[in-house]
Amino acid sequence: MPVYPRLTPLAAALPSTVPFVGPEAQERSRGAPFRARIGANESGFGPAPSVIAAMADAAGEMWKYCDPDNFDLKAAIADHLGIGASNVVIGEGIDGLLGLAVRLHAGPGDTVVTSLGAYPTFNFHVAGFGARLVTVPYRDDREDLQGLVDAVKREAAQVVYLSNPDNPMGTWWEASEIEAFVASIPATTLILLDEAYGETGPASAQPRIDLSRPNLVRLRTFSKAYGLAGLRCGYAFGDAEVIRGFEKVRNHYGINRMAQVAGRAALADQAYLHDVVARVAAGRERIAGIARDNGLSPITSATNFVTIDCGGDGAFALKVLQETLARDVFIRKPMAPGLDRCIRVSVGLDHELDMFAEALPKALAAARA
Amino acid sequence: MPVYPRLTPLAAALPSTVPFVGPEAQERSRGAPFRARIGANESGFGPAPSVIAAMADAAGEMWKYCDPDNFDLKAAIADHLGIGASNVVIGEGIDGLLGLAVRLHAGPGDTVVTSLGAYPTFNFHVAGFGARLVTVPYRDDREDLQGLVDAVKREAAQVVYLSNPDNPMGTWWEASEIEAFVASIPATTLILLDEAYGETGPASAQPRIDLSRPNLVRLRTFSKAYGLAGLRCGYAFGDAEVIRGFEKVRNHYGINRMAQVAGRAALADQAYLHDVVARVAAGRERIAGIARDNGLSPITSATNFVTIDCGGDGAFALKVLQETLARDVFIRKPMAPGLDRCIRVSVGLDHELDMFAEALPKALAAARA
Repeated sequence: MPVYPRLTPLAAALPSTVPFVGPEAQERSRGAPFRARIGANESGFGPAPSVIAAMADAAGEMWKYCDPDNFDLKAAIADHLGIGASNVVIGEGIDGLLGLAVRLHAGPGDTVVTSLGAYPTFNFHVAGFGARLVTVPYRDDREDLQGLVDAVKREAAQVVYLSNPDNPMGTWWEASEIEAFVASIPATTLILLDEAYGETGPASAQPRIDLSRPNLVRLRTFSKAYGLAGLRCGYAFGDAEVIRGFEKVRNHYGINRMAQVAGRAALADQAYLHDVVARVAAGRERIAGIARDNGLSPITSATNFVTIDCGGDGAFALKVLQETLARDVFIRKPMAPGLDRCIRVSVGLDHELDMFAEALPKALAAARA
Repeated sequence: MPVYPRLTPLAAALPSTVPFVGPEAQERSRGAPFRARIGANESGFGPAPSVIAAMADAAGEMWKYCDPDNFDLKAAIADHLGIGASNVVIGEGIDGLLGLAVRLHAGPGDTVVTSLGAYPTFNFHVAGFGARLVTVPYRDDREDLQGLVDAVKREAAQVVYLSNPDNPMGTWWEASEIEAFVASIPATTLILLDEAYGETGPASAQPRIDLSRPNLVRLRTFSKAYGLAGLRCGYAFGDAEVIRGFEKVRNHYGINRMAQVAGRAALADQAYLHDVVARVAAGRERIAGIARDNGLSPITSATNFVTIDCGGDGAFALKVLQETLARDVFIRKPMAPGLDRCIRVSVGLDHELDMFAEALPKALAAARA
């Protein structure tokens, strides 16, 4: 019986887990590649040509460590948002920033509130730092703002997580409703407002930038509309004092230099972003049409994906998912009770949506058989 | 007086700090770029042309998330080392892996042992997770193996950190001495053996790979000899059960896809690595010669830098550093008592070492004035 180095009590109690399985692992286990990659809410339109060129140009410079201050990228983001650089922190994707925020604000004995079926990586971080997770069910396929407020107050929660627009349902609240939510949360509770899909939603869903509430931290990313998921670069903005807190624990040299280059180039090419946003909107319509053509109900989406009510229970939607995957089309599905009646399809290139259109009726027939 | 969201007691007690300042921040504050970047132990030789080409080719694919299993890169590393993929974990540089290792194995009430003046980012992680740091002074400019063993036993330490070859002095122990050190550490204490500079040192300094000691985790990187510091990619290897522990807390989608591509390409081009290692050795000789030409004593190095005894105290070496920086040559220096009599110069391109050769006598004269 070998002797192992001691883990902390918290670490010893954690499972060795992965929040969710990547398409590459599925391809390895099925022994064949997918022909359509429309499951991870990536942007198959890719980064802008100007960004690809900037990356290629910078490849030879990758021997240099990143600037640990992320000075230039932070300045570009701050300029883009019309705020100060001290109001911005850059992280290894929103994933990395969520981990840091949880680490700073919630530990053993603390409570964190989120929606049941919301982002699993956030839940992974909450468990990883030993805090207790309290979940609030969705209501009518939207995150339940009043339910979240009630849970925060009832549980005296340290942190509350909300995504708007929402993943995995694609729904959203208008800015005024988000602002009312923020105003209802106690000032000592950190609000993590995940706006990963902000660029693809209606402008009316984005609250005006207002730094007067120190407990509101908003998160955005280059992974979605900007098409740079592979470079792991997100940012958070809010009150300068709260943002400065991230300096206590962040991995200062953690942002790769390629992301610093690509992020700046991406912000500079807003014309491409607008083009992608238009293509995403068209792709949503296409997916919704495919769903309706098959007698299913698409949920109106503000994101780069459409969640489709398969009209049955979770077991049925799971079969539809599996039968779609078996037809070489990578999609995903929500797993939480109530949401699990759906599948989730990311906007992709036309030929990928063609494959989905071809696969869906067959998958439905097989699932019903 | 604004109300702030609550921090955990541990986070509230931490300073908002940066382990060390990057050259870009120095350039901003001095208002001029450096002409020679030979201070951060980067590889000015850059990544291999084959690696640069692989990065440029992959730029358009950055819309895809990384494979969270790092399957292909892990397989390549395992093959390179002659071990199993389950013995390898990939992280956002050794920095990221050190943070995870500390998080898993040491928390409040625990003790971690390192050398006084060793890697500051490791110390940052230890503080960040609330463990107590016990330091052992260097002895004759080398990490004091027996002193570290004694401290581990005296303090019942959970973790001990050792770099071999060493930063910031560039010294090393032979494999047999490292093996004796490992054998002397209790099986319940995690040994983090940082071999970031392993490729540039003598083969005789690298212990044979032996996975029979679960408490030994060795760390290597693409940042140094492979010339990919900007992509943040390192790896750790050891006992499969201990390595699996990282799954409990790592940011599964944290390794950027460009690093996955570049890392594989770099491993595949060992001819370039061998060329770089030869150029590093020649560069060390050049730096040592420059030091001797100026009446200073270079310390024999197994790394991609040479630490130079300036022959005075810490205040004098600090002046030499400042006067060298003022001549547009970016170098660094050790700061711990005893080591602080030195400056540290990374191997760079010929024209950079020419600039150092030109700057050093002037810097010495100015420091002595």
